[in-house]
Parts: sequence; C-alpha cells; structure tokens
Amino acid sequence: MNEIKIFCPATVANLSCGFDVLGLCLEGIGDEMIIRKSDEKGIRITKITGADLPLETNKNVAGVAGLAMLNHLDLEFGFEIEIHKKIKAGSGIGSSAASAAGVVVGINELLGNPLHRKDLIPFAMEGEFLASGSYHADNVAPAILGGFTLVRSYEPLEVIKINSPKDLYVTIIHPHIEVKTSEARNILPKEIALKTAITQWGNLGGFISGLYTEDYALMGRCLQDVVAEPYRKNLIPEFNNVKKSALENGALGCGISGSGPSIYALSKGIQTSKNVGNKMKEVYLKTGIEYAIYVSKVCDKGVKMI
Amino acid sequence: MNEIKIFCPATVANLSCGFDVLGLCLEGIGDEMIIRKSDEKGIRITKITGADLPLETNKNVAGVAGLAMLNHLDLEFGFEIEIHKKIKAGSGIGSSAASAAGVVVGINELLGNPLHRKDLIPFAMEGEFLASGSYHADNVAPAILGGFTLVRSYEPLEVIKINSPKDLYVTIIHPHIEVKTSEARNILPKEIALKTAITQWGNLGGFISGLYTEDYALMGRCLQDVVAEPYRKNLIPEFNNVKKSALENGALGCGISGSGPSIYALSKGIQTSKNVGNKMKEVYLKTGIEYAIYVSKVCDKGVKMI
Repeated sequence: MNEIKIFCPATVANLSCGFDVLGLCLEGIGDEMIIRKSDEKGIRITKITGADLPLETNKNVAGVAGLAMLNHLDLEFGFEIEIHKKIKAGSGIGSSAASAAGVVVGINELLGNPLHRKDLIPFAMEGEFLASGSYHADNVAPAILGGFTLVRSYEPLEVIKINSPKDLYVTIIHPHIEVKTSEARNILPKEIALKTAITQWGNLGGFISGLYTEDYALMGRCLQDVVAEPYRKNLIPEFNNVKKSALENGALGCGISGSGPSIYALSKGIQTSKNVGNKMKEVYLKTGIEYAIYVSKVCDKGVKMI
Repeated sequence: MNEIKIFCPATVANLSCGFDVLGLCLEGIGDEMIIRKSDEKGIRITKITGADLPLETNKNVAGVAGLAMLNHLDLEFGFEIEIHKKIKAGSGIGSSAASAAGVVVGINELLGNPLHRKDLIPFAMEGEFLASGSYHADNVAPAILGGFTLVRSYEPLEVIKINSPKDLYVTIIHPHIEVKTSEARNILPKEIALKTAITQWGNLGGFISGLYTEDYALMGRCLQDVVAEPYRKNLIPEFNNVKKSALENGALGCGISGSGPSIYALSKGIQTSKNVGNKMKEVYLKTGIEYAIYVSKVCDKGVKMI
C-alpha cells in the first residue's frame, strides 16, 4: 500500500465537568486527507483545499505532527500529503487536532501499524503546539482513539479510553464568530474555591460512572461545568438561551465545545439530537449571526481509512 | 422478627483523589448493634460497651439517626438499641458513621425494608451532624451501601455505587494519637490552583475508570491526592515513611483515611495487603506511638445482619 485516504474526525474537548481532561470523537464531521509514500525523505504538503493554510511543512499542523513521527521512526523515505479541510479553524471542534491526528494515524497505517494508536498521541501534540502554543491532548486523543477519552496526566502522558454508550448523539451549533483561544484562556481564574473544585470532580466521577453503566439520566445530571463555563459563556452570544432550549427539549446536557464558540449538547437517540439542533437554530435565527449545525453519533473509531 | 443483631462496618472516606466524594466499606472491622422493637415510641439506648458514649438518645449518634428515621415513618412503636463499639472514636475510619448507618439499616430490616438503602442515607447524616457539626455522607454512604461510593452531589443528595473489584484489599494503620477534625479542616486552603484541581479530577476520573475496568495498575497510578494530603499529612507522625514503605512493598496506593490519623493502603490480593501491614508496623515500632493494624477486603455489602 503506497497511498491511503483517511477521514479525520472533529472532536469535542472540555466536556463540561471534564474540563481540560475529557473529550469525545464525532462521526461524519471531519476532514479528508490523502497520504502517499514518496522517495524523498520528510513530509511535503502538496495540496490544501477548504482552508487558507500554509503549504510549508514546518508551518503546517499536519506537517509538524508528521515530521515529529518521522524523527522518531528514522525512515529512508517520506510522505506527500493532500489536506481537504472541512472543519473550520477556530470553531472549537478540533480543526487542528483533526489534521494532526490524521497524519500520524495515516502514516502509521501506510507503514503497517508499527505503533499503537496511543503512542501516536505525542506526535499529534506537536501539531497542536504549533497551532496553539501549548501541548495539549484533549482533542487529538479522542480524534486518534475514538469514543470518550480522559487525559489523566501529562507528566507522564496517560490517556484512558472510556466506554462509549451506543445511543449517545451530539448536537453542535457553531456560530460564525471568533473567540480567541488566548482570551478564552485568560478569562479563567488561576485559583478556584476548593468547594467548587469538589463539585466539579464529583460530577466528573459521576459522569465516568454513567458512561460505564450506560445510565443516561446520570450522565445528564453530571454534565455541569462550574469552573470554566461561568466565565467563557460570556464570550458566546445566546449561550444561555441555547443551553436552556437544548435542555428543555430533551438534551442530557449542554456546554461549550473546546474553548468555544461552538456549543455542544449530548442526547440519547438521534431524534432528540436532531430536535435539539432545530431548537438551537431557532435561537440563532433571531440574532442574524451565521451558524452551522451538526448532528453526530459519538464515534468509537477515531481517524479511519476511507 | 422483633430483634436483630447487625454488623456496622468501618469505612474509609476521602480516598486520595476522591477527596470529599469517594469512600469504601471495610469487612470484618466494625461495631455490633442489637435492635429490638419496643411498645414505647421513640428510641432508647439500653446499653453501650467498648466506648464511653452518652445513653441519652438526643446526644447519641445512633439515637439521633434513628429518631430522624422514626420522624419520617411515624410508627406506633419504637426501638431499643444496644451498641457494642469496636471502632475507636476519632480513628478516621468512620466510627460515628458505623453507628448512624447501623441503626437506620437495622430499623429498616425490622420493618421489612420499606425504604431503599439509598433513602436511609439522609437519616444517618443526621447522626453525622451530631458527631461533627456538618452534614456529610462520605462515610455513611459506603457503610450503608457497601463497596465504593461516590457522593456526587449534596443538593440534591446523590450517591452512586461504583463497581468494586474482587481482589482489592485495604490495610489500615491507626496510630493512637488525636487529630482534631476541626484542625484537619482548618489546615486546608479555601482556594486551590485550577491546575491542581485539574490534576485531582483527572486522577479521580481515571480511578473510577479503573474500578469499572478492574485495572489495578491504573487505580494505583490514580491514587494521588494533590489537594488535602500535602497539608494534612503534617498532622500524622511518620506519614511519609509509612506511605513510602507501603508503595515499595506493592501497595497500589496509600493515603490518609478520612481526616486521619489512620492511614490506608489499597493492594491487590490479601497477601500484599498483609505484607504492607507488616511494613507499616515496622515504621511505627520505632516511634513508640501505639497503633493498631487492620487488613480487610473491600466489602461490597455494607451493614449486614449477623
């Protein structure tokens, strides 16, 4: 096999009570990438569609992630990459992570999978570092492993894949506004009340339990974020109304996807998830702000061949 | 059935990363209680052995918990209680919780179990309030439900029972010193760094996952407390040496039980747990401080009839 075409999924990180540790992988929302072996060492980006991104390997998220992997493997050949972006940069559903995750899984496939998927995460994180200036795994982990992932620790890096109940669907509304990652970061307090922290980890513990026991109502009760959402929601127009409407229409929970501006809702069953999407739409229709709506199953697979 | 004899288990609360939310139930370490129906309404404590505790119903933890339950049930009769304490007050393994949990489960049994065990927790919390001045469920929940319990929320109260892997054993060393609960509380900061909180909830999420997947090594990596232990360990002589010795001798994790002074270690298998106990002993033998050592399976049952 000398060429491979892959699907690079969008992801939701900072899942409410799982702020900074818990993410999930979406199905059907994502970029495509073609990767082919080349006699020339290194990585060359030959084509990008759907976004205005640099072709220079060192300035491109996929290029940097791919190079990090090649440095580790020390091969006698290299790869050419075509990137077909469908996830908008700055949407809060892991656009850069999709590119970073895609390239490392794709190269691993072309090589006959010498590395476990978990071991690919650090290379993809190099791509995330280029995109955001910080090493984080909360989007690349679910993009690579699929399902729900928990980044338990960074030093050493440990990512745990959590059970993913079959009937979980995600609704995303992406308002076409810009939330600067730096602003979303700086708006958070450096210290929080111990009592607040305990509330957050009680809910996270309950949510993880709900994922294993497939107790949807419990998941819903736990999907609260008392740490980041109270600050970051102010950066997203209509957040309160979207959330209220999602919960009133059967969503288990609703919160900010990543650091925004996208808002996610989790529902049991596709019908509820679609209905929640329609209601979110109604809220945004009144504002004049453009938006996109997605409805997706939680995908247990991560990056996949197509 | 007019009389019942019950075993009221000791418990470990504040399980490292699960500070203030996660507890477990011990087997074979606990009080005994005899409860019998009486024509007279209310609760009368007829006998207490093993501890110098008040016989007056209103001043006794079991009395207060029992009365809270009777107020809810509105019966035409009452109960007499004999309490045989074996868990020392102030040991940090849920002495008051054992009494509070025992009386409400015992009365429920004598009545033919009109209430679910979970619904008994608020009555037992009244007993805890008498003992400590605060309503908490982190010991009464595992004492009543058995196994591992997570107090997800207090308003409303929600306790979740978590899967309890079969091979988990607990070693406890109880140094016979006094740690005042008020001091253990006041020594904690009111605010913590967001980064520290994220470390704690990453570990708690991982530990809960480990309990469900029965991944002992993962549980071990997660059993860290970066929030309370750094402060409270200073109240317990030899804490660092006991912990070091437990981990070096195969314990999965080690930390403060409740608010101390007892120290717990979790191990896979009884042999490791016993060995860990012997090593803990060696540390304390040098100090001249008296101590007691316990080794126990995690008990999935909670209060039980004997």
